[in-house]
Amino acid sequence: MRSAIALGGLGAQIIDRAEALAEHSDSADALTVAYLTPAHRAVSAQIGRWMSEAGMQVEVDAVGNVIGRYAGATPDARILMTGSHFDTVRNGGKFDGRLGILLPIAVIGEMNSRGERLPFAVEVVAFAEEEGLRYRSGFLASSALIGQFDYSLLDRIDSGGITLRDAMTGAGLPGTEQAIAALARDGRPLLGYVEVHIEQGPMLLQQGVPLGIVTSIAGSVRMSVRVLGAAGHAGTTPMHLRHDAAAAAAEMVLTVESRCARAPTLVGTVGMLAVPDGSTNVIPGRCEFSVDIRAGDDVTRDAAVTDVTAAMQSIAARRSVAVEIDQTSHVPCAPCSEALSAQLAAAIERAGVPTFRLPSGAGHDAMMLARLTDVAMLFVRCGNGGVSHSPLEQLDAADAELAAQVFADFLHSLA
Amino acid sequence: MRSAIALGGLGAQIIDRAEALAEHSDSADALTVAYLTPAHRAVSAQIGRWMSEAGMQVEVDAVGNVIGRYAGATPDARILMTGSHFDTVRNGGKFDGRLGILLPIAVIGEMNSRGERLPFAVEVVAFAEEEGLRYRSGFLASSALIGQFDYSLLDRIDSGGITLRDAMTGAGLPGTEQAIAALARDGRPLLGYVEVHIEQGPMLLQQGVPLGIVTSIAGSVRMSVRVLGAAGHAGTTPMHLRHDAAAAAAEMVLTVESRCARAPTLVGTVGMLAVPDGSTNVIPGRCEFSVDIRAGDDVTRDAAVTDVTAAMQSIAARRSVAVEIDQTSHVPCAPCSEALSAQLAAAIERAGVPTFRLPSGAGHDAMMLARLTDVAMLFVRCGNGGVSHSPLEQLDAADAELAAQVFADFLHSLA
Repeated sequence: MRSAIALGGLGAQIIDRAEALAEHSDSADALTVAYLTPAHRAVSAQIGRWMSEAGMQVEVDAVGNVIGRYAGATPDARILMTGSHFDTVRNGGKFDGRLGILLPIAVIGEMNSRGERLPFAVEVVAFAEEEGLRYRSGFLASSALIGQFDYSLLDRIDSGGITLRDAMTGAGLPGTEQAIAALARDGRPLLGYVEVHIEQGPMLLQQGVPLGIVTSIAGSVRMSVRVLGAAGHAGTTPMHLRHDAAAAAAEMVLTVESRCARAPTLVGTVGMLAVPDGSTNVIPGRCEFSVDIRAGDDVTRDAAVTDVTAAMQSIAARRSVAVEIDQTSHVPCAPCSEALSAQLAAAIERAGVPTFRLPSGAGHDAMMLARLTDVAMLFVRCGNGGVSHSPLEQLDAADAELAAQVFADFLHSLA
Repeated sequence: MRSAIALGGLGAQIIDRAEALAEHSDSADALTVAYLTPAHRAVSAQIGRWMSEAGMQVEVDAVGNVIGRYAGATPDARILMTGSHFDTVRNGGKFDGRLGILLPIAVIGEMNSRGERLPFAVEVVAFAEEEGLRYRSGFLASSALIGQFDYSLLDRIDSGGITLRDAMTGAGLPGTEQAIAALARDGRPLLGYVEVHIEQGPMLLQQGVPLGIVTSIAGSVRMSVRVLGAAGHAGTTPMHLRHDAAAAAAEMVLTVESRCARAPTLVGTVGMLAVPDGSTNVIPGRCEFSVDIRAGDDVTRDAAVTDVTAAMQSIAARRSVAVEIDQTSHVPCAPCSEALSAQLAAAIERAGVPTFRLPSGAGHDAMMLARLTDVAMLFVRCGNGGVSHSPLEQLDAADAELAAQVFADFLHSLA
């Protein structure tokens, strides 16, 4: 089957286009593309152009998703949805999310150049927001498609004081609840949602296999924590009279780390940590940090969240500081469809490489779509030790080529 | 003696003027005056005007110090130096430093209005920099006067990338080593340096006394620490494979706290702490913090610095992260002059209040001047529990009035 599909340099095209998108960034010295910034809008426009060139009808929806529709053989054909996100974390990698947009565009462009139609339509959704960077809440884009957008977020402000609503209208989007509510999709015409993504971890690399099939996607619980102590002069306040917000926060950071080391699939991370406006010679009166806890199953994860929350409150009480804990997201684990996964596995087998199944510790848009339709995920090997959310993230062009071949074969087999 | 000096509302004048200076700030919602910012220059200009009104000859020197000279009865009179700094920490208090400038201006203004001259000249030095906020190195101003300015700092950049040299020339100062070197004073004509300062701690408040005489000034060792780990995806990297810079830093913060709780006068503070550009779902690859360690004597302090440094290196080694520790300042403890302190004590006694002696945990310009001449310090009770380096810092007008009377009496007794 592999030799029957002439895909040529799709892997190279995918890598080249990921490099081209990475030219747009919110900062000069790192790849950062937050929701609806000028860099974000430039990336969106470029993706739309490539979708058009690949023969798709392109639409930008009310949350900024760029949706390319490659019509099926008949007007009433069902729809296979695919895609991923194009926003990034701060100082992120070039392939996280974007591979899952550029790969189907490449495959469909090739199909279109041969005038080929499938018995179903393919919709490539370039999700505008997944990482939660700007408004500290992820999956803004995919939650809208499943009718679960949290409208209270419209009044949330970013670090520059701009509400989500104003960011939307500033980007030419309606910014109304009505327009966002209208994005909710009906699951019935959908064959499913299949997302291609780099693994963002070391498993495939360690196993020596280029592709993986995801069994389930770990949901994360995220918390925003503020510790409020008493500011004071660093030279004149005896240690035993202090209510140091940073020392209390340090103890909490170590609690997250030690509690989350107690189960195999469990992970806990403090990714943001700061004493706002700190000075060398001032005892911190305030310290803020984020907590992200995930596991292969919700029971393991929620037990850790409960323990960490209790431990933070007990540390605060012992040190006579206040702690405010906001749970900013709580996403259940999502199992992948066995039927779709089996068809992906068959395509991998036909390509002559071993199939390997693994859970995803990272959250993905597929996790949200799983509430609407069957989902499956194809992981592609991540280079450089499996590092992601970092400029060191790497994807091999040969792996991208193989993934494109397998994805094309999967589409044909689904037909 | 107290009733013989008609000082009137000097306490009220001092408070009013501190309030007026606090109108100038680098930020809209807090009192922050960093070296050579527009707010700093406005404060400098206002102090110069008040010095002139009080009958002093005013000069701004090459590091931005505002020096008011109230001539003595004869041209060859010796000089008593007094003063303090007018920069602030971030989100600081209105009286820290500024009391020691406004109080002698008030006392001398009153003297001048009566046409009174002393047998020695009085120089009030409003030091332009003491807190180390902008260039992460304090005592820039007083170090120049004792001929110990660190010229390598001229090339250091602030958080906006501006070198100290450029900040100086931008503020109309020469910004040359030659001009700064020329500020070095000869100690021989000096009678000494006497600094008035709010206590910035709770001791006088707890003792129920308004004034205190400082026995010695604790010098601080300051370190700038960078922990370099490995960034990675928060969902896909197992806990045991992480090299989390923030978790390592958290452990180091707690080491500073626990080690510095082991001796009575010892204090250790991590005042600045940040994961630069952190994201919720990214394992921190970098974490930066400051350390400030002080004690009543250098032996106690340096033992703590040695232990903390070794502990940080051992934590880094155990976690396979790198740690870079720069010692940004190392100031020895400065004993105060017994002769000058005795004359201060006598003035306090004549005012009918008890004399109370205490060490200063906070660093002061007097610490630097102690290398040039005899120094003494008069502490004034700090309100609100003794809090300082905070907008909650308070000074009672009656205490300011009493301190002004005692200072005036001290000047006369010195005559």
